Amino acid sequence: MTQQETRPGRGRGRRPLEQVRAEVLDAAAELLITEGYAGFTIEKVALRSGASRVTLYKYWPSRGALALDAYLHQTGDRIAFRDTGDIGADLATVLLGFTELMGLPDQHRAFTQLVGAAQSDPELARAFDSHYFGPRRIEAVNLLRAAIERGQIRPDTDPATVVDLLWGACYQRLLLPNLTGTLTDDFIHTLVATVMRGIAN
Amino acid sequence: MTQQETRPGRGRGRRPLEQVRAEVLDAAAELLITEGYAGFTIEKVALRSGASRVTLYKYWPSRGALALDAYLHQTGDRIAFRDTGDIGADLATVLLGFTELMGLPDQHRAFTQLVGAAQSDPELARAFDSHYFGPRRIEAVNLLRAAIERGQIRPDTDPATVVDLLWGACYQRLLLPNLTGTLTDDFIHTLVATVMRGIAN
Repeated sequence: MTQQETRPGRGRGRRPLEQVRAEVLDAAAELLITEGYAGFTIEKVALRSGASRVTLYKYWPSRGALALDAYLHQTGDRIAFRDTGDIGADLATVLLGFTELMGLPDQHRAFTQLVGAAQSDPELARAFDSHYFGPRRIEAVNLLRAAIERGQIRPDTDPATVVDLLWGACYQRLLLPNLTGTLTDDFIHTLVATVMRGIAN
Repeated sequence: MTQQETRPGRGRGRRPLEQVRAEVLDAAAELLITEGYAGFTIEKVALRSGASRVTLYKYWPSRGALALDAYLHQTGDRIAFRDTGDIGADLATVLLGFTELMGLPDQHRAFTQLVGAAQSDPELARAFDSHYFGPRRIEAVNLLRAAIERGQIRPDTDPATVVDLLWGACYQRLLLPNLTGTLTDDFIHTLVATVMRGIAN
């Protein structure tokens, strides 16, 4: 009997897979947000969630992949894309949601440390690609394509370049040491207005 | 007598300070470029340069500060700003220089690992701020201000936002895992054209 199995109702095999997964992600998210990625270990997640390390490594290939999954688990739909038919407003909404999230110091620390670690952790970089940056980029490009089709945006606009302009500017203000604190609502409004002036029909 | 002082002409105190500094930076740059920041240690720089660890820590407060200084030492004027009076061309020139540098795998690895490490290394972050991002941002803002004064750019343009648009888009393509290889000359031309369309008079 493992240590986990002596705890009532928390033993391996007693909980349905989905419940275990949700409990692990809750515990991992709490750890990531309170201690940052620097203090995030598989061991601590095992201890907090009651799942064994074997179980954790079975579903998450690495510490980085689990941390990213936990991060996304707790952001929920706070940075979800919506298409209301007004491309300028929709871009501002999603960027303001991201700005609000990054205004919370614990969220800011967790996200920037994860992005930083991905620069030298190929496993985490792949997880970021497939679970966050990749899908979100596709959503943003589709939003811009729909606006081109509606005639709101010049037909010769390159949606990928516009995504890089908008999100690149935000990540720059988020990640560069000398720009800490400059990712503000005012900046988002100026940013979207400047880009819209270049691409609006 | 330390080990260094037994080497003819390489002992502490026998070389003028500027020469020691240049030799340390040459050795450190070579180490950074060949092994990346992951393999970069003060010990290895001491061994390669013949300077003692005490000397190194006297002039560079940390491993990160020395690595960044070494990185900038070897980039030289390949990414220098120039004001020819044509803001669109000047922005393209400096961004194409950066793109060319980042097209070299060793340079790319050194720079992205340094930026990544700065996310959890406050000492390195401060060095980046005072020696790289801070001064370069001021140069770019001044370039845009001069263009506003010449009437090339709309007077209501916010230079800081334009800097974030241009460099942010480039850093996004450089640093995000799913965009590896997309920081190309073609991208720079589309980027500058899109931004110029939004700000040109």
